[in-house]
Amino acid sequence: MIIVGELINGTRARVGAAIESRDAEFISELARRQAEAGADYIDCNSGRVGEAEADDLAWLVGTVQTATDRPVSLDSADPRAIAAGLAAWQGQAPPLINSVMADDRRLEAVLPLVVESGASVIALALDQAGADPSPERRVALALELVERITGMGIGCERVFVDPAVAPLSTRVEAPSQACAAMALIRRELPDCHIICGLSNVSHGLPGRRLLNRTFLAQAIMSGLDAAILDPQDRELMRTIHAAEALAGRDEWCLRYIQKHRAGLLD
Amino acid sequence: MIIVGELINGTRARVGAAIESRDAEFISELARRQAEAGADYIDCNSGRVGEAEADDLAWLVGTVQTATDRPVSLDSADPRAIAAGLAAWQGQAPPLINSVMADDRRLEAVLPLVVESGASVIALALDQAGADPSPERRVALALELVERITGMGIGCERVFVDPAVAPLSTRVEAPSQACAAMALIRRELPDCHIICGLSNVSHGLPGRRLLNRTFLAQAIMSGLDAAILDPQDRELMRTIHAAEALAGRDEWCLRYIQKHRAGLLD
Repeated sequence: MIIVGELINGTRARVGAAIESRDAEFISELARRQAEAGADYIDCNSGRVGEAEADDLAWLVGTVQTATDRPVSLDSADPRAIAAGLAAWQGQAPPLINSVMADDRRLEAVLPLVVESGASVIALALDQAGADPSPERRVALALELVERITGMGIGCERVFVDPAVAPLSTRVEAPSQACAAMALIRRELPDCHIICGLSNVSHGLPGRRLLNRTFLAQAIMSGLDAAILDPQDRELMRTIHAAEALAGRDEWCLRYIQKHRAGLLD
Repeated sequence: MIIVGELINGTRARVGAAIESRDAEFISELARRQAEAGADYIDCNSGRVGEAEADDLAWLVGTVQTATDRPVSLDSADPRAIAAGLAAWQGQAPPLINSVMADDRRLEAVLPLVVESGASVIALALDQAGADPSPERRVALALELVERITGMGIGCERVFVDPAVAPLSTRVEAPSQACAAMALIRRELPDCHIICGLSNVSHGLPGRRLLNRTFLAQAIMSGLDAAILDPQDRELMRTIHAAEALAGRDEWCLRYIQKHRAGLLD
């Protein structure tokens, strides 16, 4: 499982304030704690748009890479901010670009950056922000988008397809349709990663952590192998270890048993 | 979700002793606690075979029905013990017979009892005890068995198909193959129930409760709508409420929100 730690997000009040005041200690600590908890990428979202975003993202990347060797995930809708983040990155492992969708203008600006930097990229199965396409349309969008991305010479293993799960509170069928979409995408694109921004599924409902980890178990069985989440949620991480073993992705259950011996399942 | 409470099982040392000494108070309390925790059926397994089993099962049924109005599940491989249990049952709601499999001798003895009593029945997708058929064979066995059962005039809604999940520790593919089998059975037999004896999946591994609840979430997304389990495991019951909502079986999430208001998700 590939974990993208979600905590450095400027829309969270305390994080937004730390970004604005350039509080490097606070951001570094957040990066370090997520890496220790098992994050493979550290997502950086400035929470602001316009001119400030590019500066913010460059500063976040600079700060995160002093704290940990984990690559960053550049979380922005603005190709200029992504370019600024990539320019600031000096680490070994290439970053993850979060995200592109089937919208020509942004794709044309972002895909050359992916090619040039060797980054990986999240391909969101949407054609416009705020849309809620049918399950069939989502799968079609994902396949079209991946074809376009790999057509530029970007290998499937660098593409993270995100079926863009709508919240359960908006449509009760959304999570089960997302699982069905993941199973189809997994079958059609066995070498791509499948990712989701986990917390969206529980938006607007109580008991969000319970819903998040329960959905994660279900999505892993459907082919999900990456997620944007809070790696400090121990019960969630336990669920991942169990769900991966149950999905047949942990030969002899060796990783599961190792986590158990390390006391991580208690 | 239909819950069959598993705790009255004579292979558990304390329960076996209570059955042997006819400790009605102990068994009644176990029945009552499971009903309060949400069991729809109270499983009765004497843990003994031969002559003793029929007497044990009749006594268990008599004891359970003084403690709760929930119907019993008669858990025996011996048609004589099942007949004795049915004869002792005086409750309103018909019992569940646990179980039959595709083995002619037992089927011929048990199906007339199902017809006569109006009971429901668990159809195990196995052709002999201890077998581990291929996933395709399991689905074929389930369909054949259900055809035979419904051919006797027993309605699909009285049949609980059990895909007989093998432990993860014996084959790492077993749980994912079981989920795939459940999805197929759900498609072929939309009106049947799909059940599993949950704890088998984690046999031989540490962290069993974590594995059990994680697999249950996955199986519910695949079409499972009944399970034999410990209803006193609160984290497991929480997972059920969340998993059912996520599987789209809880319109407007009303049951989930109600459970949350009742403090059952904390």
